[in-house]
Amino acid sequence: MVEGFQAGAAGAGLKRAGEPDLGLIVSNRAAAAAGVFTTNRVQAAPVLLTRERVKAGTCRAVMVNSGNANCCTGEQGMADACEMARIAARNLEIPEEEVLVASTGVIGKPLPMEKIEAAAPGLVRSLSADGWPDFARSILTTDTKPKLASRRVFLGDASCTIAAAAKGAGMIRPDMATMLCFAATDAAVPPGDLQAMLKAACDASFNRITIDGDMSTNDMAILMAGGASGARLEAEEDRERFQAALDGLFVDLAKQMVKDGEGATKLVEVAVQGARTPAEARRAADTVANSSLVKTALFGEDANWGRIMAAVGRSGAMVAPEKIDLFFDAVRLVHRGEWAGAAAEAEAAEVIRRPEFSITIDLHIGSCRDFVWTCDFSVDYVRINADYRS
Amino acid sequence: MVEGFQAGAAGAGLKRAGEPDLGLIVSNRAAAAAGVFTTNRVQAAPVLLTRERVKAGTCRAVMVNSGNANCCTGEQGMADACEMARIAARNLEIPEEEVLVASTGVIGKPLPMEKIEAAAPGLVRSLSADGWPDFARSILTTDTKPKLASRRVFLGDASCTIAAAAKGAGMIRPDMATMLCFAATDAAVPPGDLQAMLKAACDASFNRITIDGDMSTNDMAILMAGGASGARLEAEEDRERFQAALDGLFVDLAKQMVKDGEGATKLVEVAVQGARTPAEARRAADTVANSSLVKTALFGEDANWGRIMAAVGRSGAMVAPEKIDLFFDAVRLVHRGEWAGAAAEAEAAEVIRRPEFSITIDLHIGSCRDFVWTCDFSVDYVRINADYRS
Repeated sequence: MVEGFQAGAAGAGLKRAGEPDLGLIVSNRAAAAAGVFTTNRVQAAPVLLTRERVKAGTCRAVMVNSGNANCCTGEQGMADACEMARIAARNLEIPEEEVLVASTGVIGKPLPMEKIEAAAPGLVRSLSADGWPDFARSILTTDTKPKLASRRVFLGDASCTIAAAAKGAGMIRPDMATMLCFAATDAAVPPGDLQAMLKAACDASFNRITIDGDMSTNDMAILMAGGASGARLEAEEDRERFQAALDGLFVDLAKQMVKDGEGATKLVEVAVQGARTPAEARRAADTVANSSLVKTALFGEDANWGRIMAAVGRSGAMVAPEKIDLFFDAVRLVHRGEWAGAAAEAEAAEVIRRPEFSITIDLHIGSCRDFVWTCDFSVDYVRINADYRS
Repeated sequence: MVEGFQAGAAGAGLKRAGEPDLGLIVSNRAAAAAGVFTTNRVQAAPVLLTRERVKAGTCRAVMVNSGNANCCTGEQGMADACEMARIAARNLEIPEEEVLVASTGVIGKPLPMEKIEAAAPGLVRSLSADGWPDFARSILTTDTKPKLASRRVFLGDASCTIAAAAKGAGMIRPDMATMLCFAATDAAVPPGDLQAMLKAACDASFNRITIDGDMSTNDMAILMAGGASGARLEAEEDRERFQAALDGLFVDLAKQMVKDGEGATKLVEVAVQGARTPAEARRAADTVANSSLVKTALFGEDANWGRIMAAVGRSGAMVAPEKIDLFFDAVRLVHRGEWAGAAAEAEAAEVIRRPEFSITIDLHIGSCRDFVWTCDFSVDYVRINADYRS
């Protein structure tokens, strides 16, 4: 899928027997590497380790396990994260410093290293240029579908590919960091440029989604650039084209995450315009997108605009209630702070039955705009999270 | 119940037929009045009106309707709030400026004034010294139980009573304002003192609870002091005793609210100690108490401490993960940031089955402490709020 990269997966028994729970991506040469990490103050051992290793600017491989977060595991947890990289390095015959690691799953249990060690040779044997779908499956937790996307980018005479696999489902909120995402390209990109592009793409995608307002201890997005395609980002125009493709790829994956959010049945864009400042637009959009009352109403397919007004009112953004317009897609349900009538309500009731739609709140006091993507809050979300560890 | 006050209720047809949805409390003389109101920027008309009227420092009556919030109803909404007070005043033969009003229910629908007008004479006829339980029932929305409490306070040779009725159930979060609460005492208290005492009691009680992290447009707490008992708050000691009783009364009602939170099955105190500052202790406690993942785990009776650690880590409070201890009641489940073992887990599993217990997080980096009360997040919460308007 991406020239110069191989991917694979294996089952080590960290999740239910027979399910893949180890994933590996390997570059056939030293690849430029960039990473973005959770801003949670409680961080898993693999996050601490990989954050340090990415600073070198290059890597050869990333190994991921699901089913266990290796978080709140103390000194043993850090030793285990290092050992996981060492196991991959030994089996791949590469330096251990060039292996990045990531973990996702239950917090607070020691990583069963003997299972990982036993599964590693099979994991390496599974590597292939077509192994991305298997890799994408191996990193899932409560996700119901693998999340994989790729883009082809034409740069003058040359072209390159970017591919990425991601996982989501829960403990997701905007403007913090990302969930797990592993991306590779066969373009040649210097590490500094790669880091800036990764950060920009995360801000345009993973940092705009919320599922439950919670924030993981294990989030990371890694982007590797191997250069095997021969394509280089030299002209400013090439960089812009690559950035646009990377943004589009990540937005694709971010929306896949929200659609597959725990118990989710809808993907809703919450946009705020006419705000006094960009920060207030974002804050109002975030507050609506994270409101349990708004999200349960979405699940109930109830265009309960009063709850949206209440959320906007408590967001901290400057608002004049009597100026607010509120739309479900193109249907204006609230006009100058008041109900727009039965005809609009009937049309909005149609919109809210759609699997994807937008809620736009026009504050009419400024010219700033921002938006986020969210999902509804369902009975199944509670069921999934009440039973997660048992 | 409170000398010099009468209370009553009637059904105007704002909720289902036959259910009481109008409530009235009347003082037989001009009573000192104090009020605390929602800090939401979107505020219902009765909040705007009553906030102004309380500034006069005295009132004679408060009239409340449930089933309709009279919020986002524009100029007509303000006219209706004034008219509601006028209807009460006419039937009670008192000046309309001395009537406070409050509304709770669905946002954005006009208040059906003709129904309120028709029911007002019956409402006034229902008034009696023993009418508080009927009043308490009339202000409920999704609550399953009326919330009523009273305290007798001994002040030197004299004594007085404080009684209060409250409603809660949803759209509740700490540190914002309160839900509806109407309190009366037969002590004589100057309006300025009354306002200060009401604010302090709300901070100690209603501002420490969260059900769903949402915040109402209609919250208010009103306290009236008629003075019929002859008891006066003169000595500093009397004021302290009265404040302690008022605090206790409101804490009682606040806990009743959380226990009867929408779909709630548990009352949990979340305490943070060893924080660097009081604000950080509160912020960490709030973040844990509002986390959907923590609250669904409580519903599932899963002592999922990893989610608590993740919430503390994203709270913004300064934390050193390797120093954190975490307790379920007296059971230390996390020691210095790591799992305390299977024996502790088994004991914590017992604690979490209790209907009331505490989670204490010791950050061990300072000496500041704060706490809030929360409930679990159940399948029924989603069901209640998905179907609320339909």
